[in-house]
Amino acid sequence: MHRYRSHTCAALRKTDVGSTVRISGWVHRVRDHGGVLFIDLRDHYGITQVVADPDSPAFKLAETVRGEWVIRIDGLVKARTEDTVNKTMATGEIELYAQEIEVLSAAKELPLPVFGEPEYPEDVRLKYRFLDLRRETLHRNIVKRTQVISAMRREMGAVGFTEYTTPILTASSPEGARDFLVPSRIHPGTFYALPQAPQQYKQLLMVAGFDRYFQIAPCFRDEDPRADRLPGEFYQLDLEMSFVTQEDVWNTMGPLMTQIFEEFAEGKPVTKEWPRIPYDEAIRKYGTDKPDLRNPIVMEAVTEHFAGSGFKVFAGMIASNPKVQIWAIPAKTGGSRAFCDRMNAWAQSQGQPGLGYIFWRSENDKLEGAGPLAKNIGEERTDAIRTQLGLGDGDACFFVAGEPEKFYKFAGEARTKAGEELNLVDRDRFELCWIVDFPFFEWNDEEKKVDFAHNPFSMPQGGLDALQNQDPLTIKAFQYDAVCNGFEIASGSIRNQSPETMVAAFEKVGLSQQDVEDRFGGLYRAFQYGAPPHGGAAFGIDRIVMLLVGAKNLREISLFPMNQQAQDLLMGAPTPASPTQLRELSIRPIPPVKKD
Amino acid sequence: MHRYRSHTCAALRKTDVGSTVRISGWVHRVRDHGGVLFIDLRDHYGITQVVADPDSPAFKLAETVRGEWVIRIDGLVKARTEDTVNKTMATGEIELYAQEIEVLSAAKELPLPVFGEPEYPEDVRLKYRFLDLRRETLHRNIVKRTQVISAMRREMGAVGFTEYTTPILTASSPEGARDFLVPSRIHPGTFYALPQAPQQYKQLLMVAGFDRYFQIAPCFRDEDPRADRLPGEFYQLDLEMSFVTQEDVWNTMGPLMTQIFEEFAEGKPVTKEWPRIPYDEAIRKYGTDKPDLRNPIVMEAVTEHFAGSGFKVFAGMIASNPKVQIWAIPAKTGGSRAFCDRMNAWAQSQGQPGLGYIFWRSENDKLEGAGPLAKNIGEERTDAIRTQLGLGDGDACFFVAGEPEKFYKFAGEARTKAGEELNLVDRDRFELCWIVDFPFFEWNDEEKKVDFAHNPFSMPQGGLDALQNQDPLTIKAFQYDAVCNGFEIASGSIRNQSPETMVAAFEKVGLSQQDVEDRFGGLYRAFQYGAPPHGGAAFGIDRIVMLLVGAKNLREISLFPMNQQAQDLLMGAPTPASPTQLRELSIRPIPPVKKD
Repeated sequence: MHRYRSHTCAALRKTDVGSTVRISGWVHRVRDHGGVLFIDLRDHYGITQVVADPDSPAFKLAETVRGEWVIRIDGLVKARTEDTVNKTMATGEIELYAQEIEVLSAAKELPLPVFGEPEYPEDVRLKYRFLDLRRETLHRNIVKRTQVISAMRREMGAVGFTEYTTPILTASSPEGARDFLVPSRIHPGTFYALPQAPQQYKQLLMVAGFDRYFQIAPCFRDEDPRADRLPGEFYQLDLEMSFVTQEDVWNTMGPLMTQIFEEFAEGKPVTKEWPRIPYDEAIRKYGTDKPDLRNPIVMEAVTEHFAGSGFKVFAGMIASNPKVQIWAIPAKTGGSRAFCDRMNAWAQSQGQPGLGYIFWRSENDKLEGAGPLAKNIGEERTDAIRTQLGLGDGDACFFVAGEPEKFYKFAGEARTKAGEELNLVDRDRFELCWIVDFPFFEWNDEEKKVDFAHNPFSMPQGGLDALQNQDPLTIKAFQYDAVCNGFEIASGSIRNQSPETMVAAFEKVGLSQQDVEDRFGGLYRAFQYGAPPHGGAAFGIDRIVMLLVGAKNLREISLFPMNQQAQDLLMGAPTPASPTQLRELSIRPIPPVKKD
Repeated sequence: MHRYRSHTCAALRKTDVGSTVRISGWVHRVRDHGGVLFIDLRDHYGITQVVADPDSPAFKLAETVRGEWVIRIDGLVKARTEDTVNKTMATGEIELYAQEIEVLSAAKELPLPVFGEPEYPEDVRLKYRFLDLRRETLHRNIVKRTQVISAMRREMGAVGFTEYTTPILTASSPEGARDFLVPSRIHPGTFYALPQAPQQYKQLLMVAGFDRYFQIAPCFRDEDPRADRLPGEFYQLDLEMSFVTQEDVWNTMGPLMTQIFEEFAEGKPVTKEWPRIPYDEAIRKYGTDKPDLRNPIVMEAVTEHFAGSGFKVFAGMIASNPKVQIWAIPAKTGGSRAFCDRMNAWAQSQGQPGLGYIFWRSENDKLEGAGPLAKNIGEERTDAIRTQLGLGDGDACFFVAGEPEKFYKFAGEARTKAGEELNLVDRDRFELCWIVDFPFFEWNDEEKKVDFAHNPFSMPQGGLDALQNQDPLTIKAFQYDAVCNGFEIASGSIRNQSPETMVAAFEKVGLSQQDVEDRFGGLYRAFQYGAPPHGGAAFGIDRIVMLLVGAKNLREISLFPMNQQAQDLLMGAPTPASPTQLRELSIRPIPPVKKD
């Protein structure tokens, strides 16, 4: 027989009854039922119930084992009696009668319980991550994460992509977030950087003629801790395609992602045909470029109904500023004064003056708009609003007013709040979409200049001609995001592969051709020697896995995460370097600069 | 029609004749045959021949295109005449009659030719790597590399392994090679390290209960440039298994690797049943623990035949030192004085006093041993040697004498030299084996102490008992290498998962329990809480790919390698950091220490 096991802890079935077998694993739980010991033995694959009674030669040793000891058990497979069969366990029809036990590794008293998974402080969980990872939920999440990534690789291969690995020790990227630096020993005073993303490398791969690239790519950003991003490293499904338009990227990646979501959605519906929503439309309808489409609320402008109306606050704003709009947030089933007042109070807690509303109710078989606004604007306008929005008895509508670019974020939050409070959001589904036609530039009000709104490497719609002849703030980019349930899960674009157009774009934000050469030398040089049209995207793997397992915290889907102070409590990092190391690297730590 | 292509440059066949199609790609070559232009258009997938005559509306533009321009061509698929069919091309039965050409991206004069792949200086190739990578051989090598890695993932999955990704920002490892360090911004004066290998993490995964781990793992070592290792990063197929003996690792990975080699060996034979050669035996037979088993020469000790013989040099050495042995290197077909003298001269060029030999020839139907040694030891001993080694007419044998531990390396080199010079080595096959039973400790003559011979985390054979009761230099480890054609392609071991045995092992090399806790805290702590028996290996992916594509240089199988001075000439790394970056990281470059 094998030294450690003839079967895993998930393998034994009724058909094995009568066999002598060997299993190894961790002691999940020990129970003493009137002198008979029950040991749940656990391994990666499952749990087997082991039983030892005082007649068993293994009994004496069985009495000594404790939780999380690693033991080997030889025994006889017995059928459970009908009343003790456990249908929720794969091995629930049998139990193993222990004949011999070997302790392979004892465990000290546990700093963190495995069985039952009680809540425990983060620092203990991270320091003893090897115990934490034995807990059922985290163990299952991690395995699912590996399956999701494996499915991504499989499906990308199936549609003709090849996985290429790009360097991790590379050059500092002057755009974007803060780099992690790595001092060079051989070239004192100089540094490598860890890649924030393989953006330039994947574009270089296209210029090198590799056509369809993908990579499960580690990315590194030295950012201050944020709730939704662990310090240090994160993973992207990074991809790039040559000789494509943005429709090709959408038509390739949308169905592929739908398939992956469906594979792990445990029966929840997943969007098959992803809507393509222009950025401007997303802002107008949802108040955000990351709309949660499970929320059925769609905002609409109702400015005309308030212009010249009896509600002087709105009417005055509209009259004095042509940019002012009134947006309606229709809230089906929200038609009670209590709910409307709660929303109003919430808005005030968000620093808003309040949230105007109308709600509709039937009084004496007549549909009536209620609330101060309805009174002020009168029955006709109230009903026009109700008709436009398709509302009825028991529904409400909230209103935000002003210049949309100043209020759209709050309007979007109010839409989310109303949808959630009213349980309009169907949580058991995955709603996916593309947000397209992002603006290429944005106005930097502080520096009074134009900046890139997103990726400076994206192709502006209209190309060189648009850059030369169009108001830059009206130029759209071939730039798109993928959004799922209110979270951005991908970002991508068709790239600007023309050196002239690249220089013209950078000139708009105040950078010269020389700046481009200095900062993006590798890519700029490459574009001079035959660059194919190309584009791609990067999907955030951590976010996708969180959505699929329903985790709220990155630590629940990460193997060995650092804490929010960017420390690895398990391995003890970061640590001071030795004098020899510092000397070899020609660097010296200096006292930190005091923050103001 | 699609904006850029209806077909790739490898897709068109005779069945497409008569179709109007669109292809895009790079201009591989332009030829002018008496006023008719032939353009070989190339993409990732293949090459299509395009033809334009003066009647074509595309002719004028076709005249202007140059090598490596990216163009789109619309045209009519025509059958080639029988005498112009090219059977070596997938598209060799057709050509595309160009009707419209669009220049998608022109190219400046090329610093590096793509077509024909002439030799070119390394610095130009690396700076313009995006052009270099378009060359057929390198492009094919890189694609094959991705296929090998993809096959590894597929096969590892098929035998129950799961790919887990371990952190890249981690703790400095005090054993082994030099770490790359990453200054922490949030914790001034401290550093992360990039992993030299995920050794500790994969063992922690086993302790966390994950059973069968693998990873295509990036590894980082800040070593001085070596011919066989690029600076910076390299990749391992890293794996670990729980509840296994070393036989399980061999029985899993041997057949798997054979399958992967066979998949890419292009018909060359691959070892199916890997021999398991104990380290001592490998040294004795091949003079190395990385034997090239394609070389049929097996060394044998022939000490007895020289003891008390008339060859006084050897006889005297044997008489005066019981450790002295004489090893024979049999060299079939090497039986000529010219060859033996050449080997002797080579030995002298290696700093040896010379290389004694005997060769056999038939004189008057009598087999005669020739050369000075044969004369000195006489006919009977000469014939006894010949019989022991199974040699005959036209064969030779070389002899090395002394203490084996001092000469075995040279003996192994002489074996290699003889095998190669005599063309005994069958280059068109892959000979794989396991080298097993490595010594656990070795003698450090400088410090007059015992050191770990290999991996300090390996389990000594005999366990704690052996450490307590056995001469440490006689203890073997459950430690093994995989070797292919003379190259180490993997190393692995069963790990020492017992805290007591771990401490006892480190005590032998002069380290205390406290040292173990300080240096390997995460792992040592984990072993206290229920650690399964486990073991694994790491296969060197770069080396395996080099063997499979027949490349001699790592740059021929690497996408974006640094040069031997650890510089990325394409992206321009490493570079000085900005004052802001240095201030944020609380470090200051200092003048390098002068080397003595």
